[in-house]
Formats: sequence, structure tokens, C-alpha cells
Amino acid sequence: MAGTGDFYDDLETRDPEAREKALLSALPDQVAHARANAPFYSDALKDVDAKSITSREALAALPVTRKSEVIELQKSKPPFGGLAAIDAGDAAAVFTSPGPIYELMSGTKDYFGLGRSVFACGFRKGELIHNSLAYHMTPGGWMFHSGAQAVGCAVFPAGVGNTEQQVEALAHLKPAGYGGTPDFLQVLLGKADEMKLDVSSVKKAMVGGGPLFPAMREAYNARGISVLQNYATAELGLIAYESPALEGMILDERVIVEIVRPGTGDPVDEGEVGEVVVTTMVPELPLIRFATGDLSAVMTGQSPCGRTNTRIKGWMGRADQTTKVRGMFVRPEQIAAVAARHGEIAKARLTVDHAGGKDISTLQVEANGDLNAEAVAESFRAVCKVGATIERAEPGSLPNDGKVIDDIRKFD
Amino acid sequence: MAGTGDFYDDLETRDPEAREKALLSALPDQVAHARANAPFYSDALKDVDAKSITSREALAALPVTRKSEVIELQKSKPPFGGLAAIDAGDAAAVFTSPGPIYELMSGTKDYFGLGRSVFACGFRKGELIHNSLAYHMTPGGWMFHSGAQAVGCAVFPAGVGNTEQQVEALAHLKPAGYGGTPDFLQVLLGKADEMKLDVSSVKKAMVGGGPLFPAMREAYNARGISVLQNYATAELGLIAYESPALEGMILDERVIVEIVRPGTGDPVDEGEVGEVVVTTMVPELPLIRFATGDLSAVMTGQSPCGRTNTRIKGWMGRADQTTKVRGMFVRPEQIAAVAARHGEIAKARLTVDHAGGKDISTLQVEANGDLNAEAVAESFRAVCKVGATIERAEPGSLPNDGKVIDDIRKFD
Repeated sequence: MAGTGDFYDDLETRDPEAREKALLSALPDQVAHARANAPFYSDALKDVDAKSITSREALAALPVTRKSEVIELQKSKPPFGGLAAIDAGDAAAVFTSPGPIYELMSGTKDYFGLGRSVFACGFRKGELIHNSLAYHMTPGGWMFHSGAQAVGCAVFPAGVGNTEQQVEALAHLKPAGYGGTPDFLQVLLGKADEMKLDVSSVKKAMVGGGPLFPAMREAYNARGISVLQNYATAELGLIAYESPALEGMILDERVIVEIVRPGTGDPVDEGEVGEVVVTTMVPELPLIRFATGDLSAVMTGQSPCGRTNTRIKGWMGRADQTTKVRGMFVRPEQIAAVAARHGEIAKARLTVDHAGGKDISTLQVEANGDLNAEAVAESFRAVCKVGATIERAEPGSLPNDGKVIDDIRKFD
Repeated sequence: MAGTGDFYDDLETRDPEAREKALLSALPDQVAHARANAPFYSDALKDVDAKSITSREALAALPVTRKSEVIELQKSKPPFGGLAAIDAGDAAAVFTSPGPIYELMSGTKDYFGLGRSVFACGFRKGELIHNSLAYHMTPGGWMFHSGAQAVGCAVFPAGVGNTEQQVEALAHLKPAGYGGTPDFLQVLLGKADEMKLDVSSVKKAMVGGGPLFPAMREAYNARGISVLQNYATAELGLIAYESPALEGMILDERVIVEIVRPGTGDPVDEGEVGEVVVTTMVPELPLIRFATGDLSAVMTGQSPCGRTNTRIKGWMGRADQTTKVRGMFVRPEQIAAVAARHGEIAKARLTVDHAGGKDISTLQVEANGDLNAEAVAESFRAVCKVGATIERAEPGSLPNDGKVIDDIRKFD
């Protein structure tokens, strides 16, 4: 059984250089595996020499695969769009998330890797967890469930809804804690108060799938419940998790995370907000540079809890900033394409507003040296099919919020 | 991987005497285990010499535990009423069924034993099954799921509801078959026709949890889907299953099944309808003579499919025939108590009708030798607190339908 001391395993407290070396030395094999066994990558990486992908720089030169592409990929090549290295029938379970996007779980113990987060939340072998995430169709419930099993916990698969029965089960089974969305625990506690049932056995909670606001965390703490969150997706499983240190989210040990400028595959500087791009070492769904559509940023330093892996700030919004300007879709990829036409542009950000009955687009650019604003405006019209005013901004002055398109129109 | 030939394992084709010997030689250990590790049985079987329970006669002398008692047992001794030999936290999962009754699943592979039934339905390793039973709270979905995993199948945990999304998933994932209630597959097929989506990959179905009417089975067959059912409960897992021979249900290899007169623990003659009482060899929830409340009957002979275990007729109704006569509850146990006071009574059956504005109770009795009807009427009043007319019936003339109380009043 994993995790009987303070840490789930020795990987968590490795020397960061040893971790980086281990991940980067596993990377060429994973790239080769994906190319050999996942048809999508056989094509996407056909010109790549897998053996040469031994550094973050080499990785950053590979194409990103966007979550938003997956629906179409899977429609044309069911069931998994060629992204999986195993057949559906050889999985343990197959899921569908809204989109629809299809995912899988193999029979490997704790396939999604959430055991690490369950352990960090304080759960230990022999405890019972009430899991209020759905097991039907989507993998949410299964991710928490298999993580709990990996730690040696029993699970009550409560699922969603049926609040009164859930409260009755809480009062009868007296679980040590809760797994689910951050807000539903409040619903359960409120209903328990109303029903005058004692659910005070719940002292710990592992939450995900939605924002845990600081006030919400404090309210739980006031009731004697410590709540930690994690960041996981249906395709990748665990990406990062909170520890009791409560300083950002610590990366999982199976992933290489890059933060890139939205719409591109280009890593941003450390600390800058961008899109979370993940390369996983999981063999069954060997995603290489998978762009999650989520925004976050790398934090400097290490967690005081003793876990040595890189930390990220957690979920900071969605990177998909596609919007419509005067009836035309404008996408972050197009802003990146405009910038790419002008070597002097270091960073560009489109602001969309509405005044006098029409949409007003302003492209702010940080540039090195001279800027030919007229040429940039022409490029913008050519790429985006709508016009924009070009405005020069001081280097470093554009906000660090991961936004490439900032839509500030008021629609109400 | 189990089951690559025609049978799931060698147990299915054993010499019936060898099976009986194996079950009866395991029985004393199971009784001793229950008494030592399940607090309810420590009490209920405290005067029993476990070593002596080596025959069906000895087993038949042990007390039955009725499913209807479990709710109160569990209320007074949460979570499992002392029936389990493991703690909730040492289970893999804990469930609740309407009642509420709480059940568990251990981490043992295919804890519920449904793999045998999945295999008999024709499913094989590497196939995908669409499972439309619920995973939330109740164990239904888990029972099918872990059975499918034991055979080496992948599962799409569809759960209940969301019919359109379920049809979309069927059309996209093209599973080999369906698991669920007998009627919901009709709903899915109807919706698929309406949505003009092709779900013809579904060729097999394993159904349970409700009646599979012959016309329904034929309608599925006409669409090229073979449908087999099983009989399983949340506490016991698999009890019996259909094979392609379609002659009754073959008993599972882990259970000793008795058919008893409802309200008693007394085995009926072979072929007679009575309540299904199960003793299981599963260690985690070691139920000894657990009265399911379901009616069935043993069939003579063996299945032509080659499986040699005893067959039962499948579900024939509920044994719980408790009713109210002139405001008083009358239970099968009370009819049994009346009969027990008069050695000459071989079988008794109460018919409750309503005429002239009042309830009319008639106790029909099959008797050996003389019958003192007046004394029986007195006993009836003493035990049931209401009167009844006593009518002598020819030996063997009372219907073989498992009914001890037949309520023929029309309430509409």
C-alpha cells in the first residue's frame, strides 16, 4: 500500500533535477510509443525523430494538440480519434464528456493518478470517503474513486443528486470525508442541518471540477472540515494538487507541464500566465503537448510541505478566447499569426469593445525596435477579415493574465 | 483470464455430487467464520456447533435471517447490522439500496460473482459492454461492471437516464452488447430509431433487476439481439443465471440455495414453490440462510447446455405476503405458527376476500388424518387476533404458487 508516511511515495520529495532528468529521459520513449501506437501521432509526429526529444526545447518544437480539436478528430476516427494506444475493448472503462469527447480508463491501478491527491488531502487506508461526483458517462466519479482505492480507502459512490438520501447515508455510514465539487458539500451540510442529522464525521474533503473560493474554504474550515483541491482532466487524470501547505498546486509526477501563449505552442517566461499544455507518461492515452484550454502560471520556489515538484497557480480561467467581432470569429491563433508576420512584435493583445453601436477592436503590441503599425493593421485585416486599430504598448506593460483576446463588451 | 472455452470455469461442469460435497464441506468453516467475525451471527448462532453443519438437514435447522429484518438490524448496529465480517473502511465500496439497506463490495475480483453470468450471455474478452444500470448509491451497476471486468470486457458506465446521450454513445462506441434492466434496452432502441442512429453493433444483452417477459425477449431476438437474464441481489451477488439453453436459471457455484415455505425456515419438497433462502460462501458478508423474500422453485434434471448445477425457475413473485385483515396485520409467519400448533396440518393457506362490507378470511388446510377445525380456528384467533373459517382441502390440492396468504380483495 502506497503512502504510509508523510508522502504518498518517494517521487514527491526527489531532487528536482533528478525528477527533470527522469521525465526527460522517459520522454523519447513516450514520443516513440505514441508515434508507433496512436494513429493520430503516427501522422502528427511522422517527421519527428523521437530519440532527439530529450529536452524541453525539443519538446516545445512539437505540435500542440488542442482539446477543442478532439471532437472532430473523434467524429472522423471513432472512438478516440487515433489518440489512444489501446482499443476501446481493451480498456477497463470508456467514458464520454460533454462535447462529446470520449475518454478511457485502463485496468492499471489508479489509472488517473488521483491517489496522490487523495493522500495529500489526509486520507489514509481504512477510511471511508463519500464521493459525490458522477459515475455515469463521465469519468469524474471514477477518477476520485480509483484514487481513493489506491490509498486503501473505501468509497460510497453517492453520485449526483438525491441530496436527502446522501445525507442519510452520511449520517449512517459516518465517512471520514467527502470527494466532489467544492460547492455540493455546502448543499449536503445545509440539508443535514435541516434534517437535524449528524454528519460531523466528515473532517476532510478533496474537491475538484469547479472553483473553490477562499470564503468557501474558510466556511468549511469553520465547521472543522479541511478542504484541498486538485486539478485533473478527463484525458490526463491528475495534473496538479494542493497539499496542506496551501501554496499553489504541486504538479503530478507523471506529467511534463508547459505554460504557453494561448493560440501558440510557445512557452511563456516563468511566472507568466498562459495555457496549460501537458505531456503525459501514461501509455494508454499518450498525449503529447495536449493543450487543455486552461490558464495557469508557474510559481517560483518550492512548497514548504516538502514536496519538491514545480507548483502552478491553479486554474486561472479558460484560454479559449475566441470571440466574434462584427460577425467574424476572431481566435487567439489568428492574433498569433498576425504577430508572426512581424518579427518586431514581442507580445500582442486584442481588446474588443463596443461603442456607438459598433464593435471596436484595438490590437496592443509590445515591440522590439521600430513598429510598422500600418503593415500590422493590414496583416490583421488579411488574417482576421476585420479591421483593428494598432496601438504600441511599453515592453512589459501588457497585463500578465494569459489573455490574447480581451472581450470587454457588456452584453447585458 | 477466466472462460475462454464454452464454460466460465470447470466448476460449472462438475459432477453434481462433487459440487454438493464441496459446498457442504466448506459450510462448517463458513458458519464458524460468520460466528467468529460477524457480530450478528456471533449471537444468532451462539449455540450452534459449526463443525456439525455438514448436511442440508443440519443447515435447515439454523435460523433464517429475513431481508425484511435488515433495516432495523442496521439501524441499531450501523453500518451493516453486524452481518458483515469486515469494517466499512476495509471494503472497496459501500452502497445503500431502498429501505435503506446498506451493502458492501470488497476488493476481491468480481466480488458479486456476475462474471459467470456475463460469460454465459456470450460476452468475451476484448468486447465493450454498454451498462445502463445505476452506479450511484446502489450496487446494481457495480455488479454488472465487475462481472464484465472479470470476463475481460470494457464497460461504458452509462447509468440511468440521458437516453439521447446513451444512444449517441452506442452509435459512436459500437459496443458488442448491453447490460441493464430488461425494458430499458427497448427504450434505447426506440430512441435510436427516432434519431436515425445505427446501434446494430449490440448483439447480446445481459439483463436483470426486473421481469423479462417472453414477448420482450422475442422482440429483441427479432432485432438480432440475444437476451439472457440473471437473478442477483445486492447482498448476495449472483444467485442464478440463464444459459443459452433457456431452461430455467442455473445456480451460481458459491451458494447453497434452499426453497422454504414462506414465513418458515422449512424446506419444501423439490418442485414446490417457496421462498429462496441462500447461504453464501463469500467471506466478507457471510450470510447464512438469508431469506430473500423472492419466490422460486427447483427444477428437476440438468440443463442441456452442459452446466450441471441445480436449476430454479427464476423469479416467481414476492414471498412477503403480509396483509391487513380487519385492521390487523397478518403475516406468513403467523400462518406457520398456527400450523405448527397442530401436527396434523401439512400445508395451510389463508385466502382473504371482502364481501358484504367486511373482510372474510378462510384458512384452507391439507391435513394428515383427523383435523380438529375448531381447535385450529381458536389457534388462528389467538395468533392472528382475528377470526377465520377453517376449510379442509384434499392433500396436494392447494396451488403450488408459494402463497401462504392470498389476498384476493379488489381495492379498485
